[in-house]
Amino acid sequence: MREAYHEELAALGACLREMAHLVGSAIGRATTALLDADLPLAESVISADSKVDDLQRDLEDRAIALLARQQPVATELRTVVTSLRMSADLERCGDLAAHVAKLARLRHPDHAVPDDLHRTILEMGQLAQRLMAQAAEVILTQDIDAALQLERDDDRMDELHRMIFQHLMDDRWKHGVETAVDVTLVGRYYERFADHAVAVAQRVVYLVTGEHAGDYIPDTPLSP
Amino acid sequence: MREAYHEELAALGACLREMAHLVGSAIGRATTALLDADLPLAESVISADSKVDDLQRDLEDRAIALLARQQPVATELRTVVTSLRMSADLERCGDLAAHVAKLARLRHPDHAVPDDLHRTILEMGQLAQRLMAQAAEVILTQDIDAALQLERDDDRMDELHRMIFQHLMDDRWKHGVETAVDVTLVGRYYERFADHAVAVAQRVVYLVTGEHAGDYIPDTPLSP
Repeated sequence: MREAYHEELAALGACLREMAHLVGSAIGRATTALLDADLPLAESVISADSKVDDLQRDLEDRAIALLARQQPVATELRTVVTSLRMSADLERCGDLAAHVAKLARLRHPDHAVPDDLHRTILEMGQLAQRLMAQAAEVILTQDIDAALQLERDDDRMDELHRMIFQHLMDDRWKHGVETAVDVTLVGRYYERFADHAVAVAQRVVYLVTGEHAGDYIPDTPLSP
Repeated sequence: MREAYHEELAALGACLREMAHLVGSAIGRATTALLDADLPLAESVISADSKVDDLQRDLEDRAIALLARQQPVATELRTVVTSLRMSADLERCGDLAAHVAKLARLRHPDHAVPDDLHRTILEMGQLAQRLMAQAAEVILTQDIDAALQLERDDDRMDELHRMIFQHLMDDRWKHGVETAVDVTLVGRYYERFADHAVAVAQRVVYLVTGEHAGDYIPDTPLSP
């Protein structure tokens, strides 16, 4: 009985890590699709998102079954509840990666991102993927220091987001309103993706310390 | 014992409804602050958001205590898990209302929204507030028809969102890039607010029917 219990708990963790790997890969591939105006790659990111949604439902069903059968208390109960929360963050990251890919699809064969923002968007995409890889590791190791490091690394995302706004507001912006709208949205998708990766790490901190997540960093709103 | 149990379950529902009322009021007030460039009102929306965050934590603590003490199964278990999910939606709505208010604050004493979009943004704000009032009612009544109606009413939000994009892309747009960026973000905030109100209603459907939410409407991405 206890063995089955711990297997079920471990299965939740494995499911979360698989979700994290899928959405980390998705944001990387979506960024490539966006910067290269690669339609087939964009399509593959969009269609693969349903796999993430399926995993979230699977995790929710498993969590509810586990709560009903095993009636966990204390740390194990918190683990199950926190897993539900994390799965919602990861599912949302899948949506955001798909949104990036949808923008690539919408503007194809044109490039949605102008050349002078290519490098910034590339860095946002790479950072988002890296933050998610860190989050997946934190789910596995429950390493508090690594979780807190992830929050500091997210500062760079906020900086990149601000750089985009500065660029948009520059009088020399010459790409018109449509591209400004595209870049505004895509910047927000990356920033939200990173916020959710940080939230996953924060929930691990909550799990280990009992301190509520969200006390560490504020939500990063619009800051043009 | 059973009486305490049902009181605790009822307290979760009361907490959710209070959150829904607070964020519904917040989006209404934020819209007024935005359209009137009313700085004190914007400030009050921003500072009031911490109350919503507090309620969410309170709900989470109550839910975990209830799971540990009462070890619910079947419908009651699903109610608790679903409450956790809903509280995350409502907390996010509070953030989004605060984001609208922060935009009003950022541009004050100027108006962030140009006159020719005043009516569209007003309708988005009113619709968002109405959808949240409907969601609060659905939490109370668990009325499936009302929940499904909410999804249909959200179609109007998507339509308004598309109208904003059409306006932005119009060659006659004369408000410059900064205002285009502001309007893009604010449109997204309202649309996401509405999505979360719909999600709350969907979770009630799941609770009552056992059918997973999210099967009814897709996430509404960028559609300029």
